[in-house]
Amino acid sequence: MTDPRIGIIHERMKEITKIIAVSSGKGGVGKSMVASTLALILARKGCKVGLFDLDFTSPSTHVVLGVGGIRPKEEKGIVPPEVLGLKYMSITYYSGDLAAPLRGTDVSNALIELLSITIWGKLDYLILDMPPGIGDVTLDLIRLLPNTRFLIVTTSSQLAFETVKKFVGLLEEMKMPVIGVVENMKMNNSDDIHLQADKLGLKFLAVIPYDAEVESAIGDAEKLLGTALANGVKKIALEIMVRN
Amino acid sequence: MTDPRIGIIHERMKEITKIIAVSSGKGGVGKSMVASTLALILARKGCKVGLFDLDFTSPSTHVVLGVGGIRPKEEKGIVPPEVLGLKYMSITYYSGDLAAPLRGTDVSNALIELLSITIWGKLDYLILDMPPGIGDVTLDLIRLLPNTRFLIVTTSSQLAFETVKKFVGLLEEMKMPVIGVVENMKMNNSDDIHLQADKLGLKFLAVIPYDAEVESAIGDAEKLLGTALANGVKKIALEIMVRN
Repeated sequence: MTDPRIGIIHERMKEITKIIAVSSGKGGVGKSMVASTLALILARKGCKVGLFDLDFTSPSTHVVLGVGGIRPKEEKGIVPPEVLGLKYMSITYYSGDLAAPLRGTDVSNALIELLSITIWGKLDYLILDMPPGIGDVTLDLIRLLPNTRFLIVTTSSQLAFETVKKFVGLLEEMKMPVIGVVENMKMNNSDDIHLQADKLGLKFLAVIPYDAEVESAIGDAEKLLGTALANGVKKIALEIMVRN
Repeated sequence: MTDPRIGIIHERMKEITKIIAVSSGKGGVGKSMVASTLALILARKGCKVGLFDLDFTSPSTHVVLGVGGIRPKEEKGIVPPEVLGLKYMSITYYSGDLAAPLRGTDVSNALIELLSITIWGKLDYLILDMPPGIGDVTLDLIRLLPNTRFLIVTTSSQLAFETVKKFVGLLEEMKMPVIGVVENMKMNNSDDIHLQADKLGLKFLAVIPYDAEVESAIGDAEKLLGTALANGVKKIALEIMVRN
């Protein structure tokens, strides 16, 4: 039997122009940092932006943005609170600081529930912060929101890129559009990842050098926007605004 | 109805003295590097060691160890091949280099299947390389192998440690033993993570400084054993052999 909520999701999302999933397959490559900063930068450029943290078992964009004590309003659905110029949605409104150990079926259920009840309204961009792994959230997203575009984050490490390659292979097989790849936290001078991205036919969007300042900017949006990370993400924002 | 394979798992694992899950909750903190190196070091110290990669959707210990072209033998179950002095088991024997996009239920099923058919024989230590997130593998492991001890890997980043805290909270709630915490890829001089670990009542086992040499040692076990990573992991191996 089809879940009746799935029909509602399309209705809920119809005023959103572009959905961008900041993803990797790999964990710890900086997806949450890139997703949060990208959402902030697009909002500062005058776009209407939503940010939705889909890493349900270990959400962290609320820590990056330094937002606390906010709650969505309920009115025939839930309205995400507006913070730092963004409409912001996270499972932490419900789970708080406790661990959310969720099986895949629960993750699917939470995703469908939150997509079907959240009233985003009109948005130019909805940025999704994806969890690591290639599991239920990715598979459900492809099924439920097939117009999602994927922005791929990797580090310079071959271990990260091996997983990225598999993840991109899956997206291609599923005919999902990939915006391009960002090399984050770069500490070497090698252009190996750039070359490998070219070989896979992926647009290489930006290099973001490792910047020790980023750690101390966690929780402080203004400071974050002054880091080398933000400089790199500005290039990606431009690419997205011009072409996507 | 109870899955009949679950009864077999206990039988299959009965000659294993200690099961150690190298875990974090967070991705990209170096779990696979620590798990692989720990298994190698314990084996070099004369222990009988197994290494089982449980990151089914993005396995990487086979890349770290540089093992390829090996296959388990089948004889009333499957016998993990012995490489570099370890009995080594990975889903890549079956999935190859393709992505394994698995829903949580498939992950559970793969875990139960592999645990019930793998003939480890007598082992002093079975090292488990855990996936990121707090999902099916963690919950199943706690249910199926309740004598598992958890070794926690974090980086110095507050974003990583926030997830680690949640993960450790879950383990405590489930009354699962935690060996201690390792701070990996450290690039600062702060003792903040050490202090926070103390505060949580966690044994702080080792600091592993960031070492650019580790990247070039991926796939080369001998080179790996000469890195700063291996030096840190030796302390953990000693702690495990003496106390656990």
